[in-house]
Amino acid sequence: MITNKTCREFVDVLASKEPVPGGGGASALVGAIGMALGSMVGNLTLGKKKYADVQEDIKAILDKARILQDELLALVEKDAEVFEPLSRAYGLPRNTEEEKKKRDEVMEEALRIACSAPLAIMEKTLEAMKLHEELAQKGSRLAISDVGVGIIFLKSALMGASLNVFINTGMMKDRDYAEEINKKAEAMLDEGKKMADVIYAKVEGEIRT
Amino acid sequence: MITNKTCREFVDVLASKEPVPGGGGASALVGAIGMALGSMVGNLTLGKKKYADVQEDIKAILDKARILQDELLALVEKDAEVFEPLSRAYGLPRNTEEEKKKRDEVMEEALRIACSAPLAIMEKTLEAMKLHEELAQKGSRLAISDVGVGIIFLKSALMGASLNVFINTGMMKDRDYAEEINKKAEAMLDEGKKMADVIYAKVEGEIRT
Repeated sequence: MITNKTCREFVDVLASKEPVPGGGGASALVGAIGMALGSMVGNLTLGKKKYADVQEDIKAILDKARILQDELLALVEKDAEVFEPLSRAYGLPRNTEEEKKKRDEVMEEALRIACSAPLAIMEKTLEAMKLHEELAQKGSRLAISDVGVGIIFLKSALMGASLNVFINTGMMKDRDYAEEINKKAEAMLDEGKKMADVIYAKVEGEIRT
Repeated sequence: MITNKTCREFVDVLASKEPVPGGGGASALVGAIGMALGSMVGNLTLGKKKYADVQEDIKAILDKARILQDELLALVEKDAEVFEPLSRAYGLPRNTEEEKKKRDEVMEEALRIACSAPLAIMEKTLEAMKLHEELAQKGSRLAISDVGVGIIFLKSALMGASLNVFINTGMMKDRDYAEEINKKAEAMLDEGKKMADVIYAKVEGEIRT
């Protein structure tokens, strides 16, 4: 499993020309790191008298955050799995018309599969952002900078995953299907970027006054 | 060593209320991941006939990238080390005027030390961005999305590290020194954000046409 590699090994294999992990898997890991920073803020708020009135909310955030971290780590592996059919499709022969047709069909299906992981990474990072939105309001002020770091990592994970959606949809022959996926990704991108910028600006403003 | 933890363990300990790793160390790791994506693009360009005229440039980029990755991974550890004196300073007694004065002095020095790691992370991510700028021009077009993911991770690492500079300078009593550090950080932040946005837009434009 890729996520059982040490951080050092992950960076090394990512840097190599090995087909996986790539930008999608790296986005899932950065998303998990972003969510973990939010969890840290939650854990530093837990049990503090000053934040007595939000203890139940923080517990609920931590439960959801734990699940999102696990899901994002699982998506590191998933992204590697869904790349395999695409990698195989690239290698198919295209000498005859029949081979070309067959290759196009296999490729189209492989592209759809390859999109599924980065789309799921986008969905999960967006959910993680919503928890940061709540943490920016209710979390311990002593750890507020970590909400800012968390949200900026989630934004970059969302954007990184989106590039991995767009590079696959760009190669699809079925343009209607491709545009449907693009619209879905664009909507998440718009929502997430706006949310992240508001939260980051709030944190930066709080730190720099 | 923190970077010898598995990715999964890193996320777990980051999520906990353990004092380290925190947002600074996480920024260094995300910076290393960003640089590794650039290295991957370099490695996928190496030895390709189509890119014969840039082989020496790519080799030079890969050499520098390898060093930056190692330096950023070392900064994950360094950020944890420089947080220790600050953590100890917080715990000093402040019952008498003398104790308060002593604590203030120790705290001021600890804050300066604590700033050193995130400042170095900013410097290294900025250098890593410059390599991405070159890769966006010369790297294999097949891996161009990874230049985009790499640069957006580096931007978030730069911004994440900056919050860790500002939270420390904000607590310094010596405002002249604090402002000097802030100016240095702001200059890197401005340069890096602009550079990243240009490179990301170039990649996104290339993917989506």
